[in-house]
Amino acid sequence: MIRSFYPPQRTLMGPGPSDVSPRVLAALSRPTIGHLDPQFIVLMDEIKSLLQYAFQTENELTLPISAPGSAGMESCFVNLLEPGETVIVCQNGVFGGRMKENVERCGARAVMVEDEWGTAVDVDKVAAAFKANPQASVLAFVHAETSTGVVSDASALCQLARDNNALSIVDTVTSVGGIEVNVDAWAADAVYSGTQKCLSCIPGISPVTFGPRAVARINDRQHKAQSWFLDMQLVMAYWGGGSKRAYHHTAPVNDLYALHESLLMLQEEGLENAWQRHELHHQALVAGLEAMGLSMLVDRAYRLPQLNLVSIPEGADDASVRQALLADFNLEIGAGLGALAGKAWRIGLMGYACNQQNVILCLTALESVLSCCGAKINTGVAVTAAKSLY
Amino acid sequence: MIRSFYPPQRTLMGPGPSDVSPRVLAALSRPTIGHLDPQFIVLMDEIKSLLQYAFQTENELTLPISAPGSAGMESCFVNLLEPGETVIVCQNGVFGGRMKENVERCGARAVMVEDEWGTAVDVDKVAAAFKANPQASVLAFVHAETSTGVVSDASALCQLARDNNALSIVDTVTSVGGIEVNVDAWAADAVYSGTQKCLSCIPGISPVTFGPRAVARINDRQHKAQSWFLDMQLVMAYWGGGSKRAYHHTAPVNDLYALHESLLMLQEEGLENAWQRHELHHQALVAGLEAMGLSMLVDRAYRLPQLNLVSIPEGADDASVRQALLADFNLEIGAGLGALAGKAWRIGLMGYACNQQNVILCLTALESVLSCCGAKINTGVAVTAAKSLY
Repeated sequence: MIRSFYPPQRTLMGPGPSDVSPRVLAALSRPTIGHLDPQFIVLMDEIKSLLQYAFQTENELTLPISAPGSAGMESCFVNLLEPGETVIVCQNGVFGGRMKENVERCGARAVMVEDEWGTAVDVDKVAAAFKANPQASVLAFVHAETSTGVVSDASALCQLARDNNALSIVDTVTSVGGIEVNVDAWAADAVYSGTQKCLSCIPGISPVTFGPRAVARINDRQHKAQSWFLDMQLVMAYWGGGSKRAYHHTAPVNDLYALHESLLMLQEEGLENAWQRHELHHQALVAGLEAMGLSMLVDRAYRLPQLNLVSIPEGADDASVRQALLADFNLEIGAGLGALAGKAWRIGLMGYACNQQNVILCLTALESVLSCCGAKINTGVAVTAAKSLY
Repeated sequence: MIRSFYPPQRTLMGPGPSDVSPRVLAALSRPTIGHLDPQFIVLMDEIKSLLQYAFQTENELTLPISAPGSAGMESCFVNLLEPGETVIVCQNGVFGGRMKENVERCGARAVMVEDEWGTAVDVDKVAAAFKANPQASVLAFVHAETSTGVVSDASALCQLARDNNALSIVDTVTSVGGIEVNVDAWAADAVYSGTQKCLSCIPGISPVTFGPRAVARINDRQHKAQSWFLDMQLVMAYWGGGSKRAYHHTAPVNDLYALHESLLMLQEEGLENAWQRHELHHQALVAGLEAMGLSMLVDRAYRLPQLNLVSIPEGADDASVRQALLADFNLEIGAGLGALAGKAWRIGLMGYACNQQNVILCLTALESVLSCCGAKINTGVAVTAAKSLY
């Protein structure tokens, strides 16, 4: 017998989805209107403008794809690539591997530049890959790797792409709203993000932005994009058409109410303030974790504040600890992914969930659970260490 | 200066989205939990079971695609087709044309069987197309054409596909919950639907179901599906894996709360009762429209109860009438699409919006607006005619 579903009230400190603001949930559940309603057109224009702010871009072609980040990624590849092209793909975690899949399914060839998981993309290696593959037409990389908690130098990588007459495709799923993303300053060509990380919005939508060089490439295509749903030539006609919108697909109306509200909250706080808030609580969390005797997996130089990789201490069973956190504290932290499965936890401090109360909850809960399972940690010091940062 | 968005409270009697039940909106805004949370796994299993009920199928591979109906359509084509195959595509409205786009973008060849917009797919023509193209491996058609308000004989068409050793791809976006859809009785192979029509759920999700022959085709593919996001081999591992779910993409958690609630409402009412309700209010609406002197565009034999095509009467300006309905009554009806643009309105009676109050509102509002603009109609009789059916 199936009944209405009432989810538990979790605190989401994993790699995303992160806690959604009550303001966003309230917006989400407002009455549905038609996707061609004049009021909805106003909303779409505002979302576009708010996304331009979040991405720091004046790109006209800036809009939310009606599907999760994976579809946002795919929208960049299927629109920019044609069969037979060569793409340099940087892989320092799970999502570089997914980019390779996308390249190959477009009938293009992926030249992989691999770096150890937990380290940043090595710009010199990418330069060497361009030397060895002068025909490469696209460089694809992840700005903030959700699987490892690492930030790479997007500005240098985009510059390298331009120097080699290639377009850049940049994954900013975990970065937008948490650390600086400056699409225009980077001169990045195609950039996608997600809503369920530092934007504190529900999962399911992927903001994207395409610069003038990318738009030219899209308009000059020899073959139609292989995806009808993600074909930007068609999507543009709906999102870009002013009052003369051409129907493409039915927009996810309520999800866009939520995105609008979350972007508005980001604008109200201000990008710089949001970045500083992520940095502050990250410092406090790390101080607490280190005081407890745990060690951070990622070097300070390229550590993401919004996603903290901490090594699983001796004596602690990965799954049991996460289960206890969920059962006793309603607290979700993330497991390691891929090469880091069983070796590290991923503790998110994203968007609305990035606050002092959550830092203290996480440290207290982790100390309690690790003590119970007999892991060797220092007790009674973590919260004090964290609070010294406030 | 952008502020929080408060949509007007419309009555949605267009081709979808339709009015979303308050129960569904309440479910939508419950707190977000992780997409790998044990509680979420329970929800996923329940959704699968509720979708099997809605589709009337025991297909194991029954799940919601995390994107709108267009992506559900694309998921069927990219998973079943390989380059060079021949597909018979029936076109009697907009969505057959979209199927053709999908076929061609998969590198396959579309053999079109065209019928006049506003009429059903001609089964004999399809049989002839199979005779002329014995190599055809797939037959694709729309069960309920959203652009014309026409139902086609899905049972006969699926049988024809099987007789010719081809798989069937069936669009049931507008039919599920409004008229009978019986995937197992039809022995349909790949079927997709939408949430924003007779399920009274928000737009943005596309339920799909794949039968055993389709699954065998997916597992025997020579080439990977061209879409990573929609690759059922990967999606299956997340949705089908019992407690061992493999992460594929972040599920649209809150949207799935909403889908769960809307499917539960359908189960509580019962499929047969839901179909009867659609039929009853359709009869009442038609009685009212005809009493007013308006004429239905689609022959009674293949008229959809949930989507009513009515010819625009002489003296009435299409856009002005719809604008007045929206401005004065907060009532949305749909414009004609494609070949029917400017010739017909599409009046939806879908799911939660399919009730006596809406029938009366629509007739009253239409009479008021048409009288004001000087169209020749009979006044003062429509509501009485409609009420005679209750």
